[in-house]
Amino acid sequence: MRYELYYWASIQGRGEFVRLALEEAGASYVDVARVADGEARMVALLGSVAVRYPPFAPPFLKAGRLVIGQTANILQFLGPRHGLVPQDQAGQLWTNELQLTIADFVAEIHETHHPVAASLYYEDQKKEARRRAADFLKNRAPKFLGYFERVLSRNARGDRYLVGAKLSYADLSMFQIMAGLSYAFPRAMARSARHYRRLFALHGRVQERPRIAAYLASARRIPFNNEGIFRHYPELDVAEPQSS
Amino acid sequence: MRYELYYWASIQGRGEFVRLALEEAGASYVDVARVADGEARMVALLGSVAVRYPPFAPPFLKAGRLVIGQTANILQFLGPRHGLVPQDQAGQLWTNELQLTIADFVAEIHETHHPVAASLYYEDQKKEARRRAADFLKNRAPKFLGYFERVLSRNARGDRYLVGAKLSYADLSMFQIMAGLSYAFPRAMARSARHYRRLFALHGRVQERPRIAAYLASARRIPFNNEGIFRHYPELDVAEPQSS
Repeated sequence: MRYELYYWASIQGRGEFVRLALEEAGASYVDVARVADGEARMVALLGSVAVRYPPFAPPFLKAGRLVIGQTANILQFLGPRHGLVPQDQAGQLWTNELQLTIADFVAEIHETHHPVAASLYYEDQKKEARRRAADFLKNRAPKFLGYFERVLSRNARGDRYLVGAKLSYADLSMFQIMAGLSYAFPRAMARSARHYRRLFALHGRVQERPRIAAYLASARRIPFNNEGIFRHYPELDVAEPQSS
Repeated sequence: MRYELYYWASIQGRGEFVRLALEEAGASYVDVARVADGEARMVALLGSVAVRYPPFAPPFLKAGRLVIGQTANILQFLGPRHGLVPQDQAGQLWTNELQLTIADFVAEIHETHHPVAASLYYEDQKKEARRRAADFLKNRAPKFLGYFERVLSRNARGDRYLVGAKLSYADLSMFQIMAGLSYAFPRAMARSARHYRRLFALHGRVQERPRIAAYLASARRIPFNNEGIFRHYPELDVAEPQSS
């Protein structure tokens, strides 16, 4: 069976968490919106009354007759089919729990540049974004990153992966978080790197997996840009160190 | 087995979605933080290295030896055990998908009064909150509510419940959304009621279920207040109609 992934063609966005899982699994899939007329087909499908379980928004995945929406829900579906999650219930609940905390983190990352309204331009909420991003870097990012670093350090099976001794889809998503934050807030991330050694090591470990490395080097990986979740506005990052 | 629910003692918050499921199930549970020393025990447990899978934040549920965090994850665990979700995979995926969209909605509702930082007082972000709430009522609430109204109207088994012909935990959560929005934004909700007839009917249907009615009338139901997700700040609601 060939999966069909429906997501916006020009950004990594939330679709990227699904792309990374499909790539690591070596699954056969089409990134529908990135082929001719694909984005129009996606929008049509979203509004179609023929879809029994209509998703709220992209990403969604077609798997045979199933149409599955919500990133963490898609990953939870793919996990057991492709060995990207433990086989026991406790391990699956834990992986899903981590993924939902990553989803909360992603929402807060997006809010840094759009604290007033996703429908307005960044330029129309720049002042509010500066306040929001400052609080994010001071309070929220350390809370989330500190948590995930602790999850690694307390993993009874070692600190190489978030869940047990094997890669799960939560690790792939955590890789994306570290890559994205390093793109968006390079100064803040460089400054705090020593607090998150295990997370940065996890990022490197995932990046070097053969299928992920091949994916990242391919045209299938859309570069980061200022349309997605992770945006690089230097004025939202911490200040440059004073030269002496 | 007696469940232990861990959540803040003075607010409905995200814990309420779990409370409603436990109450409808007639499950045996302790709302730990609401008994003596409970909140201190909760905070201790959150920081304890003895917990194998440490949650990021409340709510979390202890079920025997399992400690399960993240609202949608807890509900997904409880669903099949208490007949609050269909038995087939497609129905369970769909219920989880709806619950995750409800979670996204809840996050945006919270942002209306805290668009700059959850750590700051409302009074310190009042101006930003007015902009955010205005966009929420104009664009975001209609998008989410319109979606859920459509889910009801397109349900092949009738428009009484979100999933199939029986109550699921997503319906209980949707009840809470309608109750909470009506508390927070009474004018906007009254004005738009005719667009969401099925959602208001669902709210009434859930409210009259014997166990839910008994719960709502009991001291176990914490009243809405201005510390939780749904807060009533009249200045964030739509303006009063002009008298003529």
